[in-house]
Amino acid sequence: MCLSTASKAYTDRQKRPPVFHHRPDSAVKLGQCNIGDYIALNEDESKHACVVLRLKDGDLVELYDGYGTVVSGRLAISGGGPLRGQDNEDVSKKNNSTRLRRKRNGRVAGVFLETEPKHYEQPHPQWLVAVACGSLKGGRGDWMIEKLAEIGAAGFIPLLTERSPRIDAGGTSGREERWERLSISVMKQSLQPYKMALYDPCSVQELVSEYLDQDKAVAFVGVEDAQPLHPFWVSSVPQEFGTGLIIIGPEGDFTEAEIQILEDHGTYPVGLGNKRLRTETAAITMLAYMTVAQSL
Amino acid sequence: MCLSTASKAYTDRQKRPPVFHHRPDSAVKLGQCNIGDYIALNEDESKHACVVLRLKDGDLVELYDGYGTVVSGRLAISGGGPLRGQDNEDVSKKNNSTRLRRKRNGRVAGVFLETEPKHYEQPHPQWLVAVACGSLKGGRGDWMIEKLAEIGAAGFIPLLTERSPRIDAGGTSGREERWERLSISVMKQSLQPYKMALYDPCSVQELVSEYLDQDKAVAFVGVEDAQPLHPFWVSSVPQEFGTGLIIIGPEGDFTEAEIQILEDHGTYPVGLGNKRLRTETAAITMLAYMTVAQSL
Repeated sequence: MCLSTASKAYTDRQKRPPVFHHRPDSAVKLGQCNIGDYIALNEDESKHACVVLRLKDGDLVELYDGYGTVVSGRLAISGGGPLRGQDNEDVSKKNNSTRLRRKRNGRVAGVFLETEPKHYEQPHPQWLVAVACGSLKGGRGDWMIEKLAEIGAAGFIPLLTERSPRIDAGGTSGREERWERLSISVMKQSLQPYKMALYDPCSVQELVSEYLDQDKAVAFVGVEDAQPLHPFWVSSVPQEFGTGLIIIGPEGDFTEAEIQILEDHGTYPVGLGNKRLRTETAAITMLAYMTVAQSL
Repeated sequence: MCLSTASKAYTDRQKRPPVFHHRPDSAVKLGQCNIGDYIALNEDESKHACVVLRLKDGDLVELYDGYGTVVSGRLAISGGGPLRGQDNEDVSKKNNSTRLRRKRNGRVAGVFLETEPKHYEQPHPQWLVAVACGSLKGGRGDWMIEKLAEIGAAGFIPLLTERSPRIDAGGTSGREERWERLSISVMKQSLQPYKMALYDPCSVQELVSEYLDQDKAVAFVGVEDAQPLHPFWVSSVPQEFGTGLIIIGPEGDFTEAEIQILEDHGTYPVGLGNKRLRTETAAITMLAYMTVAQSL
């Protein structure tokens, strides 16, 4: 394919309507809705529509539930003072943007559906990424979550190990909400109907029992100086698997006992080149390789 | 290779002495030094040795110039008050750490060489990464530089395009010094004797003239919906090239004229899967794939 064609496809894609998230645990399920139904956006999503994107009544949008269901509809905005054709008609020049923002903040947005819900299958294999991320400080954990979601992980599992026994080692609070917001935001930005799932923290033993005994699961452990990933992937990896598990140990590595558990469950130790990578970089690098290597 | 062996190698590697940077533009060249010579560390590196790592007189260290030259030696610390066996002998419990830090801050560190300089060849192919990064805000540019250096780029070229004509679009200042510090810091952390080179910003035309006419250079442009990278790499990419150029366009993509220039110079458009990736994520993903795919 020549560059020009691809470039045009890219431009077309950028014209797609903005996406909003509908929580799958809401009373109203997206998959059971019909044309003409009204779906209220929650506070975060209302704010995103009215304040950040400055959308208007009647604008075309899409709703994702993060589990593959997509509907289109028209935005309906209410509240926050009278709605006129132009937002700035009734505000003076002074404090214009502050007053406008305050007015917009009070608005509530919802969507009148114009299409039946459509369900998309999740692409296979699904990649679950398990990382001993207890020692990640200074936003490295948040950054890793964002990038794993962007590159295409189906789920993230915080791994608790002997040398990295906690997740909030850096004293950060609100991690779960923050990571949830990040993965919703990536889903909306990348126009993919699946949100990266965030699992509860687990130990190495729990990891292998819970995730490796699944049907057709294959697991790769990032290990410095192990067999290089690429020739192994090209020649020896079974190409038909449903779940791929990427496992990255902590700074200071797994203990002998943890390594024994991983070995006993038939995980593949693989190397990512001759560089010493930080925990979060190793996770990103391995997922990036896997997702590029499987797009045929 | 089994996990246990690899794990041992990893642990051994962690025992290597701390690394410091010796600027290659200093009056004293690392490559021309002899055993017994004294090399003074600059202010940043002195502080890193005395304050951050709290090293002591006589500790074993390594010096890298970032261009492949490595020497070992013993640290020699002077200044900042009398040096005793224990740092906290002469400070009261109150304000202990503040006074200690102040004392350490005044210290100057140097190295008495114990080995002849050793030169390491730069691994081939070298990857140069050119990114239209003008619109990267909120630390995304810094993060990208750190990760590209960690994964193993030989050089970074800020790309100026019609839709991304400046680098400091986010109003950040001191970018050059910050990026230089980041790439030095990654070199020290990853124990690689080469520092990622930071090139001057250039246009698409300058990029192809300056970097693509080099001997055995091959260039890949990240393009959504182009031929997938992996099968192309495995089957069609000439495996013997000296310089690999990774080119990532701006948000909003290259213009038709820029695409024409890239086409005319025989660059390969390649796709990274069916996800819409941010500029910095595309750069990291493509470099991660390339470096893993070439470790055989």
